[in-house]
Amino acid sequence: MIVVLKNGAPSQKVDELKARLKARGLDLHESKGADVTILGLIGDTSRIQPEELLANDIVESAQRVKAPYKQASRSFHPADTVIAVLSKSGAAGASIGDGKTCAVMAGPCSVESEAQVVEVAKAVRASGARFLRGGAFKPRTSPYSFQGLGADGLELLKIARKETGLPIVTELMAINQIPLFADVDIIQIGARNMQNFDLLKEVGKLSNPILLKRGLSATVKEFLMSAEYIMASGNENVILCERGIRTFDNYTRNCLDLSIVPYLKKETHLPVIIDPSHACGIRWMVPTLAKAAVAVGADGLIIEVHNNPEKALCDGEQSLTPAQFADLMGVLSQYAAVEGRTL
Amino acid sequence: MIVVLKNGAPSQKVDELKARLKARGLDLHESKGADVTILGLIGDTSRIQPEELLANDIVESAQRVKAPYKQASRSFHPADTVIAVLSKSGAAGASIGDGKTCAVMAGPCSVESEAQVVEVAKAVRASGARFLRGGAFKPRTSPYSFQGLGADGLELLKIARKETGLPIVTELMAINQIPLFADVDIIQIGARNMQNFDLLKEVGKLSNPILLKRGLSATVKEFLMSAEYIMASGNENVILCERGIRTFDNYTRNCLDLSIVPYLKKETHLPVIIDPSHACGIRWMVPTLAKAAVAVGADGLIIEVHNNPEKALCDGEQSLTPAQFADLMGVLSQYAAVEGRTL
Amino acid sequence: MIVVLKNGAPSQKVDELKARLKARGLDLHESKGADVTILGLIGDTSRIQPEELLANDIVESAQRVKAPYKQASRSFHPADTVIAVLSKSGAAGASIGDGKTCAVMAGPCSVESEAQVVEVAKAVRASGARFLRGGAFKPRTSPYSFQGLGADGLELLKIARKETGLPIVTELMAINQIPLFADVDIIQIGARNMQNFDLLKEVGKLSNPILLKRGLSATVKEFLMSAEYIMASGNENVILCERGIRTFDNYTRNCLDLSIVPYLKKETHLPVIIDPSHACGIRWMVPTLAKAAVAVGADGLIIEVHNNPEKALCDGEQSLTPAQFADLMGVLSQYAAVEGRTL
Amino acid sequence: MIVVLKNGAPSQKVDELKARLKARGLDLHESKGADVTILGLIGDTSRIQPEELLANDIVESAQRVKAPYKQASRSFHPADTVIAVLSKSGAAGASIGDGKTCAVMAGPCSVESEAQVVEVAKAVRASGARFLRGGAFKPRTSPYSFQGLGADGLELLKIARKETGLPIVTELMAINQIPLFADVDIIQIGARNMQNFDLLKEVGKLSNPILLKRGLSATVKEFLMSAEYIMASGNENVILCERGIRTFDNYTRNCLDLSIVPYLKKETHLPVIIDPSHACGIRWMVPTLAKAAVAVGADGLIIEVHNNPEKALCDGEQSLTPAQFADLMGVLSQYAAVEGRTL
Repeated sequence: MIVVLKNGAPSQKVDELKARLKARGLDLHESKGADVTILGLIGDTSRIQPEELLANDIVESAQRVKAPYKQASRSFHPADTVIAVLSKSGAAGASIGDGKTCAVMAGPCSVESEAQVVEVAKAVRASGARFLRGGAFKPRTSPYSFQGLGADGLELLKIARKETGLPIVTELMAINQIPLFADVDIIQIGARNMQNFDLLKEVGKLSNPILLKRGLSATVKEFLMSAEYIMASGNENVILCERGIRTFDNYTRNCLDLSIVPYLKKETHLPVIIDPSHACGIRWMVPTLAKAAVAVGADGLIIEVHNNPEKALCDGEQSLTPAQFADLMGVLSQYAAVEGRTL
Repeated sequence: MIVVLKNGAPSQKVDELKARLKARGLDLHESKGADVTILGLIGDTSRIQPEELLANDIVESAQRVKAPYKQASRSFHPADTVIAVLSKSGAAGASIGDGKTCAVMAGPCSVESEAQVVEVAKAVRASGARFLRGGAFKPRTSPYSFQGLGADGLELLKIARKETGLPIVTELMAINQIPLFADVDIIQIGARNMQNFDLLKEVGKLSNPILLKRGLSATVKEFLMSAEYIMASGNENVILCERGIRTFDNYTRNCLDLSIVPYLKKETHLPVIIDPSHACGIRWMVPTLAKAAVAVGADGLIIEVHNNPEKALCDGEQSLTPAQFADLMGVLSQYAAVEGRTL
Repeated sequence: MIVVLKNGAPSQKVDELKARLKARGLDLHESKGADVTILGLIGDTSRIQPEELLANDIVESAQRVKAPYKQASRSFHPADTVIAVLSKSGAAGASIGDGKTCAVMAGPCSVESEAQVVEVAKAVRASGARFLRGGAFKPRTSPYSFQGLGADGLELLKIARKETGLPIVTELMAINQIPLFADVDIIQIGARNMQNFDLLKEVGKLSNPILLKRGLSATVKEFLMSAEYIMASGNENVILCERGIRTFDNYTRNCLDLSIVPYLKKETHLPVIIDPSHACGIRWMVPTLAKAAVAVGADGLIIEVHNNPEKALCDGEQSLTPAQFADLMGVLSQYAAVEGRTL
Repeated sequence: MIVVLKNGAPSQKVDELKARLKARGLDLHESKGADVTILGLIGDTSRIQPEELLANDIVESAQRVKAPYKQASRSFHPADTVIAVLSKSGAAGASIGDGKTCAVMAGPCSVESEAQVVEVAKAVRASGARFLRGGAFKPRTSPYSFQGLGADGLELLKIARKETGLPIVTELMAINQIPLFADVDIIQIGARNMQNFDLLKEVGKLSNPILLKRGLSATVKEFLMSAEYIMASGNENVILCERGIRTFDNYTRNCLDLSIVPYLKKETHLPVIIDPSHACGIRWMVPTLAKAAVAVGADGLIIEVHNNPEKALCDGEQSLTPAQFADLMGVLSQYAAVEGRTL
């Protein structure tokens, strides 16, 4: 961290600050210029926030040189993290983050009935999806909207898993639901809970892979710090998911920020996937964004598919039909092939 | 809700849609123009999201006429909600939302020690604060930052309450902490938990007043829907708090959105307070923003005060000293007087 | 346009409003519900802004059904606009918007010398670029930054055009520079001038194709309204260019909004191209974003290439070397092939 | 400027970089730590952009210590700039930026007729306004909206000035209109032209005070750099105007960023005024925001007043009636008095 002191800072206050920093285990490298004095802080600065130094009136600015995350950083862990998921029911499964595949997760926004989820599961499996996604606990802006089937929905997902062998991905919303999720293949933490720090700490104690969605206005740094929360608690199996951010425009529900894929692949060793369905919120746009996600090197995709979108209890406007999904998978294979990948 | 159908929508699909809407208990008012057909939905549309109608290919657009919240709406509850808080230790207290006062809550970002919190509590009380604020459970971006004293911090707050009579305001971060908060005068839900819906439902079952902070990129509608979650669960004592939003610029930590005060006072009957400290994150700017908050008609203020900001474990850069706070209270009284209010 | 009147609006004021709207040549379709009265405005509503109706206290809301642009709208002009550019020096050229090609424009941010621009032009032509881009008049945030070679720069571009046959694309910043641009193949209007309406009107009187860049925080609607300004003045040869928008994060200079490509292709008949260089501002990320741009169906790309980026007078941090550009073109061909296109 | 070099940068490349920086007239202060090497650049760094240094692969980061603006900076010019305007018609006038007054500019969005502008001018003068505002050249999003009366509108403003003695403030949109503005008391540059650099350079050659509006998504730094453009061309009479910024929400047209007032008063010596009318775009909210503007220490206000808002050709929804304006001025006087100011 580089700390710039104000011109004319009293030497007594400078000495106090230096003593305080040394007491926190840091070495200091001081550099006096004509106008400014610069302190270079050497050592583990992850416990110090630049902002707290600004509480001191003699500090002009403070800036990190190294990232504030450690376990999530590629400089700390150069090799790609590969998350291999074998379906807990036995059969199928897939790796995420191996650089050779782009794993597609597909299924309905909400689990509505056994017939619905099994039908969709079979269809997406037939088209090449590697995971079944489906919501049992649903975060909804309105208390009057359908809130999901809850524990019953989880059971229906497990039935669909048994029928198809597809591992399941589903969202956990609160700590007290954790016991119900022991058997879930990949646990999703939603965008609105990305900085629910208590929840992050708790899923950090599990061994299930965690699919962490980026908050609607989370910076990349905050996103990685939330992954760091999970990893610092012991769970290194974190999958990062971009699902659109909030901007000044609303012609799509959110703005899919595809640049984050190459950036994250450089900055962290964790797998990165894309959710085009929630990003745009418009059915006909999903395939186009999915192709772009493959082009930027995403390690996977999570796509909403519903057997009857017009009657869906949630997010029907962005769900593909099974037929549309099958067509899309054909095209995505060709894009993946350009990069030497398979779906 | 007004639903515009696409030009040339097949009459069979239109009929199906109309039947489905009627089956949900709505009356329809149909209006056919040259180019478009418009359906007016009459009745309780709070359970229908405009987006779900867009899943139907014949729907061009869908727009609410009435707000999607009910209990939080001033049209539903015209009179101001006034929250009267008597300190649970006996003595002092204050009303929030009575239109005659602007209640100031003050104290340290984090509770650090008994000496610290008692000293600050006495100082802010002497200057006219009506509540003691202080964090025991702290939401921090980094897992390596100080996370608060937790349950011990709550006990220290209660000691300070006993010494001064000031009711206490402190943040709850997770459902499993609720038993510890029974005795807390006002429970704060932080910005990052504004859409932690499970938490909202649980605090909706309590009788303690809830201070709900606006999320960093929450729209006004989302903010009120989160209040609605609490109210729909049974707790009508909700205080709304604007604490700065995220924009494209970062010359201040967040951008204090003062326009929300007059807007909310018109749209809802709930009290609205302002947190200038977290909004700007800069000590010297806090007094200026506090004055503006009084000018726009805020029902209260929540301000960070620390006896030694340079050594604070959290957010020292935005904390006033007790002396600065005393000065500020003098000026704020004059502003309140212009509007016929007292602090 | 749909106008919702307030509950209980006095009939006299309603009648006045209706008379005023009829006087503007509109037919009205009135629909009275239990709670609200709705006026459907039929006819050419492009001259009415919803906001102006809100000046009337009896109006609750006003919403467009049809787009506020006409000439730019695909519903007005269903066939794709194809802009065929033959280099004014004779030789090469390309079409933009024909659905079969993805035309690449490449060259330095700023024209610095004859040797530089000719060398780069030859290199990009050899790699398959169809146009030479280069800045002579440069919009710079600081008055102390290099402002471009101006008219001399234009002459150097023309020399490079003569040497290579590549048509040239360069930015016009002010009306008084127009005479210098008569001979320019494609005139660029920069992001910061997207709502410089006087400039738009003037380039609307020219016959040169206009490459219009999206403003840093322009909505899609505003972007198309600026195209409409040009078209309404008589010039229908407008190419739309997405170059990154401003968000809350700054890990890239701007956020490339790729969703705009499919959206614009549906909403307008005008060609749409992508500038990945200015969007991210990071050299190593440009190729990844360029691939995604082809995947979403862009009609072209504009990419910065410099023979010595480290010594560039402007934006060297985002320029590819000629060798990097050659590699990229190889990969882009494969992506274009998936969609049945060529570069 | 502080330049951090990458770990392991080859010494030859480091030497080349250092030589290049020295050749640009800078002194270097080098500091080698265990992990990083830091170069402190000493001298006039206003001509160097941090971004251009990033074009060099050995540079990790580059950060300014001093502001990139000079003439606009308070450190360069500590005393407040006071702009004294005597009406060119003789009579009245006012100072802006003297710290003792808060000058109110008022009038219609658009000049529509002699009767209209004279009536409004007399009314606002009677209520205590010091300047008459009114638009003759209007920047409109749509080419089909009323574009203002142009040169004729300027003449009508001058008639109103003659009748009332109020100096006039009106917007200039293009360089070729400058001759018409010689006689205008304060020339406004609109938000959409804040980075129309050619226009800024030209008004920098005039002696009329320039009211520069902040762009809709301009950072504070960009705003001051645009003021610097004007000052660097020779015109030091710049008044900065905040008029609302674009965010993710749209419950008001824009978000009035009041924090910018104290920030700018610290960072620059130029006067700062507030436009509450364009910021919120809602008539009933204007008075509340105007009070807050006085509370944060604005040097002035610019407020829309129309004698018949419901029939206004532009922005009627945000215009006060003369009676509402008179009431507001009474309240604002009380707010100004708290700070020892007069209107």
